[in-house]
Amino acid sequence: MQTAIEELENKGKAAKAASRKLAHLPTEVKNKALVNIAESLISREGEILDANRLDCEEAKASGMDEAMLDRLMLNSSRLQAMAQDGRTVASLPDPVGETFDTRVLPNGLHIERRRVPLGVIGIIYESRPNVTVDISSLCLKSGNAVILRGGKEALRSNSALARVIREAAQAGGVPGNAIQFIESPERELVSRMLKMSENIDLIIPRGGEQLVALVTENATMPVLASGVGICHTYVDRAADPDKAVAIAFNAKVQRPTVCNALDCLLVHSEIAERYLPMIAREWAKAGVEMRGDERALKILSSFKVTPASDSDWGKEFLALIAAIKVVDSLDEALEHIVRYGSGHSEAIVTEDHSAATRFLEEVDAACVYANASTRFTDGGQFGLGAEVGISTQKFHARGPMGLKELTTYKWVIMGSGQVRP
Amino acid sequence: MQTAIEELENKGKAAKAASRKLAHLPTEVKNKALVNIAESLISREGEILDANRLDCEEAKASGMDEAMLDRLMLNSSRLQAMAQDGRTVASLPDPVGETFDTRVLPNGLHIERRRVPLGVIGIIYESRPNVTVDISSLCLKSGNAVILRGGKEALRSNSALARVIREAAQAGGVPGNAIQFIESPERELVSRMLKMSENIDLIIPRGGEQLVALVTENATMPVLASGVGICHTYVDRAADPDKAVAIAFNAKVQRPTVCNALDCLLVHSEIAERYLPMIAREWAKAGVEMRGDERALKILSSFKVTPASDSDWGKEFLALIAAIKVVDSLDEALEHIVRYGSGHSEAIVTEDHSAATRFLEEVDAACVYANASTRFTDGGQFGLGAEVGISTQKFHARGPMGLKELTTYKWVIMGSGQVRP
Repeated sequence: MQTAIEELENKGKAAKAASRKLAHLPTEVKNKALVNIAESLISREGEILDANRLDCEEAKASGMDEAMLDRLMLNSSRLQAMAQDGRTVASLPDPVGETFDTRVLPNGLHIERRRVPLGVIGIIYESRPNVTVDISSLCLKSGNAVILRGGKEALRSNSALARVIREAAQAGGVPGNAIQFIESPERELVSRMLKMSENIDLIIPRGGEQLVALVTENATMPVLASGVGICHTYVDRAADPDKAVAIAFNAKVQRPTVCNALDCLLVHSEIAERYLPMIAREWAKAGVEMRGDERALKILSSFKVTPASDSDWGKEFLALIAAIKVVDSLDEALEHIVRYGSGHSEAIVTEDHSAATRFLEEVDAACVYANASTRFTDGGQFGLGAEVGISTQKFHARGPMGLKELTTYKWVIMGSGQVRP
Repeated sequence: MQTAIEELENKGKAAKAASRKLAHLPTEVKNKALVNIAESLISREGEILDANRLDCEEAKASGMDEAMLDRLMLNSSRLQAMAQDGRTVASLPDPVGETFDTRVLPNGLHIERRRVPLGVIGIIYESRPNVTVDISSLCLKSGNAVILRGGKEALRSNSALARVIREAAQAGGVPGNAIQFIESPERELVSRMLKMSENIDLIIPRGGEQLVALVTENATMPVLASGVGICHTYVDRAADPDKAVAIAFNAKVQRPTVCNALDCLLVHSEIAERYLPMIAREWAKAGVEMRGDERALKILSSFKVTPASDSDWGKEFLALIAAIKVVDSLDEALEHIVRYGSGHSEAIVTEDHSAATRFLEEVDAACVYANASTRFTDGGQFGLGAEVGISTQKFHARGPMGLKELTTYKWVIMGSGQVRP
């Protein structure tokens, strides 16, 4: 254990030292390295897939379920997609060096804010090996060194990917130490990592609720937490029922296992009799399990709907399950969202402009929607070009985070001998 | 103790509930409340000064030193100044509601980022009662509720100020619960407060290094830490010696007890023989205690300079003391700053454009200066209008923080039925 901790600390120091060089690398050098990485993912496919095969076999033997296995598994086309994402990152504008709030003070001081990398980003993630590539690319482009700590079950895959990335980056002129991968599987390393505020400027947990809580509670450096998404869609009494069906269907069914999928449908009582059977019919066809409150159950008596239990409100299902509740007013819907929402993505469907305005103004969430599916909460969909994660924290970055959200700024003041009176 | 914890938790809940209303108050209402507060500080001077007198008497009896007593003490003119600051905050633009990054996506979704308050700001501070007023005003203007936890020695003063503020705000139409003051002096309350992430969105420690460390290490919500300022001024070989004297003198002497004051002077060896006696003469006249490395001691043999010990490098003196070191290159100066700086304010004095550019680019600090005194690091001086603190964290806000730094944003998406393909 002693050596594993030492290894971690040495990698932290090496990353910090490398970050100082990385911060000043020209954009072309970073882009060249990104393209090199993309090419290496394809040219070195054999060694990556060999390592992944071993991980997958072990995982299968240990009884990992199909969904998890699918997340772990790599193949040619997935590597191609990862390479393509890397090329996209290369093509995005470099956020580093941008200046803003430039002005000259009455005393002649020239003052500006200049965008700079954060320094070293730590990332603690589970299973999916593509995170290794995604985060490395985003950190490199934004001038940050990175310390990667992946899940045990993907150790061989991540290790192979990190080796390929590091060598390709180095060949492109980036300090190799800018990309650090933690090989040791010891869990205690995570605790130590969370205290390394001198060498890690920001930590990002990517994984389940437990991991996020562990990091948020114990880290001594700032945390970018991609939190739980408990998403409501409220169908107002003035909703266009057809739009409301399309939106709620899309929000629940298009990809039910992700954080921006619908968890709870709130329906105004004046439209419930008409609307609920319409959406229930579509959801039933798609295999959505429905859990309703008393009034929803009554209206949907001809559908298979089970009574919602208390724990169904404020639950992130990540599956084809939806809770349904009838409310008597916009206020009641807002109160329900205050109480049960997680501040991720919330939507109203209405043709009433005042209701939409109130909802968008009063709901305190990273993303608030009028007449659209919450599934749009995504860096790519929002035009950020790339996504580091989706923040549910109310700080710095909120909602989808792109390259700019991996930077901070410094104040640059240029004078000619000014002193303070 | 149980009751004190309950009191704290109830105040947290009340602040959170009030923050939801405060977030949508019109600017005029907030400004009116701010002006009301300013007027009440003057009209209710008697009760505030009475409370303060008791605090001061008790502090004197317990042997508090003069400097601390001075920080604690209020009088008419200090109240007037606090009232004036409040009026200034009223006159500043309201950051809430500003929209940015507005665009229409190809699918017709209208998307924008809208500036919103953080919610509830917790502040843990020591002695100075003016913090009660300053932070309440800044939070109110930026639409945030606030939970104030002041030092024990200023309990009566802070309690009186909080009462006045709360009543004046309420009379102006602001929910009284938006301003919460913790009366109980128990230290355990701080530990509990740091875990109240459900009701406190951001915590600001204002005080010594120990307090900041306690908060940074234990808080489960984001922290805005006004950290230690270990500030260097590097006099390059191409410096104009007269400018360098004026700048280093100002940085050390104009107000030595604050975080942006000079702690360490680095001087290039090619200019040291000429420059060091010039600044030493001025510093000696002002009573600055000088602690030099070997080469500085040699050059300044005719001055009273003591040998610097290892602990003098990287020390925040907060007093008329300066460490002095001779370096052989800009690189050596940069390395010294990497090793000993705290990322607050760092300056170079030089007429060499390349040297200035390198320094401004490579030094990783909240504020980097060429040819000016580090004493300018201040929200007022930078034109922010007001200052919440000076952040040495590399996140969200860096350097002087104004009203905008007490806000975050939400994404607002307006559609007409769009779903994700």
